[in-house]
Amino acid sequence: MKTFKTLEWIGDVDGCLELTDQRKLPSEFTAIRCRTVEQLYNAIKTLAVRGAPAIGVAAAFGVCLAAQETKNLELSDAKKQIENQIDYLASSRPTAVNLFWALERMKNKLSEIEEIADLQKSLLHEALKIHDEDIRMCSNIGINGEKFISEHSAILTHCNAGALATAGTGTALAPMFEAQKNGKNFKVYVDETRPLMQGARLTAWELKQSGIDVTLICDNMAGSLMKDKKIDAVIVGADRIASNGDTANKIGTYSLSVLAKAHDVPFYVAAPSTTFDLKIQTGSAIPIEQRSPDEVSNFMDAATAPEGIKIYNPAFDVTPAENITAIITEKGVIECPTKEKIEKLIKL
Amino acid sequence: MKTFKTLEWIGDVDGCLELTDQRKLPSEFTAIRCRTVEQLYNAIKTLAVRGAPAIGVAAAFGVCLAAQETKNLELSDAKKQIENQIDYLASSRPTAVNLFWALERMKNKLSEIEEIADLQKSLLHEALKIHDEDIRMCSNIGINGEKFISEHSAILTHCNAGALATAGTGTALAPMFEAQKNGKNFKVYVDETRPLMQGARLTAWELKQSGIDVTLICDNMAGSLMKDKKIDAVIVGADRIASNGDTANKIGTYSLSVLAKAHDVPFYVAAPSTTFDLKIQTGSAIPIEQRSPDEVSNFMDAATAPEGIKIYNPAFDVTPAENITAIITEKGVIECPTKEKIEKLIKL
Repeated sequence: MKTFKTLEWIGDVDGCLELTDQRKLPSEFTAIRCRTVEQLYNAIKTLAVRGAPAIGVAAAFGVCLAAQETKNLELSDAKKQIENQIDYLASSRPTAVNLFWALERMKNKLSEIEEIADLQKSLLHEALKIHDEDIRMCSNIGINGEKFISEHSAILTHCNAGALATAGTGTALAPMFEAQKNGKNFKVYVDETRPLMQGARLTAWELKQSGIDVTLICDNMAGSLMKDKKIDAVIVGADRIASNGDTANKIGTYSLSVLAKAHDVPFYVAAPSTTFDLKIQTGSAIPIEQRSPDEVSNFMDAATAPEGIKIYNPAFDVTPAENITAIITEKGVIECPTKEKIEKLIKL
Repeated sequence: MKTFKTLEWIGDVDGCLELTDQRKLPSEFTAIRCRTVEQLYNAIKTLAVRGAPAIGVAAAFGVCLAAQETKNLELSDAKKQIENQIDYLASSRPTAVNLFWALERMKNKLSEIEEIADLQKSLLHEALKIHDEDIRMCSNIGINGEKFISEHSAILTHCNAGALATAGTGTALAPMFEAQKNGKNFKVYVDETRPLMQGARLTAWELKQSGIDVTLICDNMAGSLMKDKKIDAVIVGADRIASNGDTANKIGTYSLSVLAKAHDVPFYVAAPSTTFDLKIQTGSAIPIEQRSPDEVSNFMDAATAPEGIKIYNPAFDVTPAENITAIITEKGVIECPTKEKIEKLIKL
């Protein structure tokens, strides 16, 4: 079903990471190759690669690029240098926790390495494992979430939590691809997702490519559609979930959750278990990335606002657990999420 | 405070209507002159002039242009031709009732005319009266609504219901200009208002020009701001209000009203009494204009979505009366609007 690769390691230990450049979609479908940690850092920062799980996988491969840069060093110096590069990669974006999770896992692997000869090989092996697990994770989220898409229903999604956001078929979109595989008839409304239009540029493109019935709307139309009873369920992804179930996701998700609640529309979050940050008690502790005003004031070199206007541009917002009908993970579904239910599932 | 003319009749009975071309703001500030009914029809249709009250005033002057086209005709034939042109102008946009109200008033004036020699003069006189009344109406809405802007508060508005939408200082923005005149300190958040960006392009521009503290946000950020207690009140305009208070306004208004209710933020509609359509019982009977998908899929010649994608693009939605804290009119304020209160105020 996935007709493209979001990200792929090319070659052996001295290889590089190839990414579908998501900044240019849908008008251009091009790949870029990251051969240095700095190139990858910039690719994450400028959203050439984006989506919480994909950022995690990309960063894991970033550690392999860091290892390439330690040739001729002794093991302890090499490890120190790679750890610094891990910290550098971790500073690329603050909200999605999968980035930190993947880097932490690579750091643990790094600490186990005893021979310089094993360094690159061991790290690449671990990154490839993270990549493959991500594909399986998507597939299982699809299987676990498919039941929430009823025959002849209409699903609303926001931003892009699709194949482009993961190594696999996505998180929020995985249940849709699974439902399609099972022959279900349904339609999807996609919020365009200002300011960077990930819904319009990426999700609408992905779903259309897959032959799913997709209709694009502006973000401000969702409430009106719910009032007209045209939406049966909302499914979105997540960038970080606190231990009580509060969920950070693309700006606009919180508004959708309030609208869904007001219209008795079920609201689902689909995310891998690596999205939970059990060190964080509630959503208010999740750091929210503020991005450049230029993203709002300009679109493809055209001014969308008066010069010098003040702009507020948070990349994410937090949806409280009580607005979430269920969280769909690769390990199972958590209905009416609570701290206890989440802890139980994570331990599985 | 208003530094530009939204629309102005230039010359005497054989004059023309000059409009600030709102399609090109804020990058270009240009005026266009409509010398024929068809030119004006297109100006309304393509949103060179927009905003419910401004459309009404423009259409009234359109009837003067229609009268210019009846030279050498006898009075009865001239009247017939002008009536046809009135019907043509009425078909330019379906939702804003001020258009029909102004045309109806011009039609009544037309029916009273007994001498061909009076035709152009009488119609121009009536159109100028409508124009001047609109300016006074804005000013009174400002005075009546100013009390809802508290010292050090933050107001959210959507689309453009400002000076550009009227002959005067606006409807939703009039209380802000009045509060500024009275030396109040407050700030305004403006939704950019996809797809045509009237908030970003027009309202942000107007408020910045006037020296009001304005911050631009994307439509999907409003809920998150309310959750963070950064919004103290919402003030929007209206395109048509049913006799029970249900209000059609720019798409996205309904969502804002639900979000405001969920966060205990007062939600005000500011509109002249000519916006009420007492022939219509509830909002469900208000016709909602569907506009071209191109508005969503393209911005300033740049593609914002994949080619051929299905798009849903209603221009308006309906906010039920129960979500409205008060309707601010030039005749007074209707708190918790009901049929009875509205009828009473209209009769004043």
